[in-house]
Amino acid sequence: MTDLTPRLIGLDWGTTSCRAYLLGRDGAVLDQRLGGRGVLALTHSGDREAAFEHELADLCGEWLESNPHLSLVASGMVGSNQGWVEAGYRNLPVDLLSRPDYLTEVATAYGPLFIVPGLFKEGGDLDFPDVIRGEETQLLGALPEAPRAVGEPATTDQPAVVVLPGTHTKWVRLEGTVVTDFVTSMTGELFGLVTQQSIISRLAEDPQEPDAEAFERGLDVAFGGTRDGAADIASTLFSARTLVMAGKLEPTAVKDYVSGLMIGAEVEQFARNWMGEHREATICANAQLGSRYARALERAGVRSTLAPEDAVATGLWRTAVALEIVDRNGIVEKETP
Amino acid sequence: MTDLTPRLIGLDWGTTSCRAYLLGRDGAVLDQRLGGRGVLALTHSGDREAAFEHELADLCGEWLESNPHLSLVASGMVGSNQGWVEAGYRNLPVDLLSRPDYLTEVATAYGPLFIVPGLFKEGGDLDFPDVIRGEETQLLGALPEAPRAVGEPATTDQPAVVVLPGTHTKWVRLEGTVVTDFVTSMTGELFGLVTQQSIISRLAEDPQEPDAEAFERGLDVAFGGTRDGAADIASTLFSARTLVMAGKLEPTAVKDYVSGLMIGAEVEQFARNWMGEHREATICANAQLGSRYARALERAGVRSTLAPEDAVATGLWRTAVALEIVDRNGIVEKETP
Repeated sequence: MTDLTPRLIGLDWGTTSCRAYLLGRDGAVLDQRLGGRGVLALTHSGDREAAFEHELADLCGEWLESNPHLSLVASGMVGSNQGWVEAGYRNLPVDLLSRPDYLTEVATAYGPLFIVPGLFKEGGDLDFPDVIRGEETQLLGALPEAPRAVGEPATTDQPAVVVLPGTHTKWVRLEGTVVTDFVTSMTGELFGLVTQQSIISRLAEDPQEPDAEAFERGLDVAFGGTRDGAADIASTLFSARTLVMAGKLEPTAVKDYVSGLMIGAEVEQFARNWMGEHREATICANAQLGSRYARALERAGVRSTLAPEDAVATGLWRTAVALEIVDRNGIVEKETP
Repeated sequence: MTDLTPRLIGLDWGTTSCRAYLLGRDGAVLDQRLGGRGVLALTHSGDREAAFEHELADLCGEWLESNPHLSLVASGMVGSNQGWVEAGYRNLPVDLLSRPDYLTEVATAYGPLFIVPGLFKEGGDLDFPDVIRGEETQLLGALPEAPRAVGEPATTDQPAVVVLPGTHTKWVRLEGTVVTDFVTSMTGELFGLVTQQSIISRLAEDPQEPDAEAFERGLDVAFGGTRDGAADIASTLFSARTLVMAGKLEPTAVKDYVSGLMIGAEVEQFARNWMGEHREATICANAQLGSRYARALERAGVRSTLAPEDAVATGLWRTAVALEIVDRNGIVEKETP
């Protein structure tokens, strides 16, 4: 019979939402609350700490009353300077399974909440500094193989690439569970600005359903280009307006066409310049956005696998194991408050 | 003694402003009114035609009362579907000195106002349609050599490139006075969105004066890149945030750094992919923006010349000659109303 004992509460607490997971053995999701308020809504409350504490009680109070011994771990912007407590960063290279030197914890009515630190890349003269906060936990959950136990020597230093599409897409390089490099691309945020606020938005109409053909047409431009190599988005985007004016693109196809142009330009460049010899990648995103990146990667000759949608829950579990606030069997270390 | 007889009124009537010029022999600017209201402000008036007519009277009424025989010519968005009357487009290739087959004129209290048509490029399967409205007139004024008289055979088919930076930068290829190709780049509009509305804007502070060093640093990235070839803006823009977070870029340097990143990426691509063998270009812009493009073109190995700031006035004059509403000596054809 399956073991359904709750062993951990994990929180994916981002800018716009908070998802809470009640986790059992090996990080199995026993229950979840997906509609919590994000950092942006809470940071502007009069008493910020009280607002976070209140949100935690709303989301997880019921679980914790039944299981007061459960440990709590959170990742994401909850650990930023706009969050509950600033949790700092770990400098690359970082083994996601190693215990951080410095652990950030917040005292709550339910005992300590551990906040996962972000990752920081220093960068050189022409290589930028870069930051990750939250994706390090999704990433850990997206790694296809169950990682080794804490303290065990690495069983693999297999190089891998993980793409985490979103407002700020992260391209991450790993060797086994060690993050060696990452780069942020603002494609998602630019897509929002272009389709909601630029001149392109004026001729665009919302489609009834995603227009796969228009997306492919955008990819055609990004990969074929009108000139040699990839086309810079600044010079291809205007076509979303002129094609409509010329009667060659439906207003309802504009958004998906622009999505193809922008995701295509991003993937083409990363596959060519940044991935080196890698021809495999894991994508960590919802199914709809993930399939767009998969299609673009395929065009670039890269095979991809879509990580499970609840990768972050797995990541929170694995992090709790690394933090030694649960062991692999879910034996709880927390002292009941 | 200089001939100061007024011979033409030319209007550069764009989206956000209207500039009116009182022109003498050879298009010399005798007087000007630069603060007129643009199409955006006028199109939303209750009676659009009356609003345009009223604006014309405000700007030029005084000139026309003293000189009722003057012809009137206007270029720009005044000829768009949001303007006074839609003036259509001419299909490439277009000799800017040829008389259009179809002339758009509006009846005003001062006689007919001629509106210059835009340019339209049909484009092929992977080459986009594109449009110009207003820039065709600046372009004609920016051509360094005084063009031939109307009807005279072309004295040159010298290939040339003219760049017209702005919200939507136009890159134009000519042979003599014949426009053979152009491409629109949305760099200016994207720059506005990124520096005013994206996450980049949150850490940016307005500089006291332009920061030339920060601009150069942006060009370094665009031309050197962190990887081989040019860096895609989506993946370099985030550095404007992380460099500030890492204490390596001043908040007041962000805008000029981003300007360098974006203009650099655009110019690098156009110089490499689109200009072919051309290593010379004319820039048609205000001195501040023009000098940024000149610097980026220099990095790309392209010599550039900055056209005079009142190129559009020269262009309006030359257009009026081509339209045969004045001849080269300024003999007026208009019938006094």
